[in-house]
Amino acid sequence: MYTLYYAPGSANLVVHLALLEIGAPYELKRIDIEKGEQRSAAYLAINPHGVVPTLVIDGQPHGEAAALALLLAERHPDVALAPASGSAQRADCLQWMFYLANSLQPLFRQWFYPNDHLAEAGETIQQNARAGIEKCWSHIDAHLAAHGPYLLGERFSVADLYALMLMRWSRNMPKPATEWPHVAALAVRLKARPSWPRMCAEEGLVEWA
Amino acid sequence: MYTLYYAPGSANLVVHLALLEIGAPYELKRIDIEKGEQRSAAYLAINPHGVVPTLVIDGQPHGEAAALALLLAERHPDVALAPASGSAQRADCLQWMFYLANSLQPLFRQWFYPNDHLAEAGETIQQNARAGIEKCWSHIDAHLAAHGPYLLGERFSVADLYALMLMRWSRNMPKPATEWPHVAALAVRLKARPSWPRMCAEEGLVEWA
Ligand SMILES: N[C@@H](CCC(=O)N[C@@H](CS)C(=O)NCC(=O)O)C(=O)O
Ligand SMILES: N[C@@H](CCC(=O)N[C@@H](CS)C(=O)NCC(=O)O)C(=O)O
Repeated sequence: MYTLYYAPGSANLVVHLALLEIGAPYELKRIDIEKGEQRSAAYLAINPHGVVPTLVIDGQPHGEAAALALLLAERHPDVALAPASGSAQRADCLQWMFYLANSLQPLFRQWFYPNDHLAEAGETIQQNARAGIEKCWSHIDAHLAAHGPYLLGERFSVADLYALMLMRWSRNMPKPATEWPHVAALAVRLKARPSWPRMCAEEGLVEWA
Repeated sequence: MYTLYYAPGSANLVVHLALLEIGAPYELKRIDIEKGEQRSAAYLAINPHGVVPTLVIDGQPHGEAAALALLLAERHPDVALAPASGSAQRADCLQWMFYLANSLQPLFRQWFYPNDHLAEAGETIQQNARAGIEKCWSHIDAHLAAHGPYLLGERFSVADLYALMLMRWSRNMPKPATEWPHVAALAVRLKARPSWPRMCAEEGLVEWA
């Protein structure tokens, strides 16, 4: 039994989708970010950064969305959400997970919260983040065109779920991810899986659903 | 046989250390970043982002420093650079790898290249990056104080090598990582391993050596 602390549509989304793909039993606990519940003493005790997601595994709390998604894939090898250690596609899967975590996801923080400590530079930061994010979509689109339809080719994986979360985050940007045709086709394909509408229903997401 | 494309002291450092810890044969190929070799057609063919590192494994080029370090650990399980999939400490290891990749490493990019598209906001961005980096060292220091001496407690791992690279990157900042006592103690411990002086000699690093 897993327990996932989440806020609708936040970084928990990829973990939530992975749980649904796996079919493992889990419980959801909502954190109200507007009310600042992520900074309550009780929550900081399980997540010292005060961010979602936290996944409780065997009674132990763990953080970092991408790590949790990969970990779930490893804990349920029968579902094959990721190529096994030692297999030929393992490198590609780790490479995509870290590319998304290191090069794309941090730019969304700058896009959504440009004024963290930086009121005077907010606009510039946001435009810079936008340019960086669009460069990533172009890279992903070119990769999918040549080696798709999934990030690992013919094989669906947890890296696609991670990319899908980030695509959704771009939905209200001037140029959302779905403006890139192969990225858009990947979104359509992934949203046709049963995990997507269930996740949306459970988190109460109505937009981009 | 592995081939590592590197620039002295760059993100390849953690991969280089992992190769040395593993004791696998490898070849180094230097990319001259000042001369822009990372943007040559030959290099872009193996690394479409034009960044180091690239690691060639069984003839296939792969990128993303953290992914490569973790992959090397998985490919050489006898050396135990990372807890195995399914073991109790696996979650901690993945969590640290993604924390460093997602929350700390991107801030160094802002610290070192604040003027990417952003000449007018450079100073503010750099101060923001500095604050974020220092917050990460405080977090890591508190963790090591309570659960050290390594990131995974008594167990040395690839996550420590990753942290060591990032510590070195902070050496000329107003408050380098080694100002935090438990972080500094970890650096001393890691630099006492044979892999550190060998890596420094092979990359030609003289500072912080
Ligand atoms: N590195 C973390 C970052 C998670 C994160 O930034 N979560 C955001 C929501 S998407 C959050 O909880 N923000 C609340 C806050 O910062 O107060 C991860 O990938 O899990
Ligand atoms: N996400 C990549 C980033 C690598 C990276 O930014 N490398 C820098 C050196 S530390 C680089 O090659 N810069 C050259 C350039 O941007 O032209 C990784 O972690 O491997």
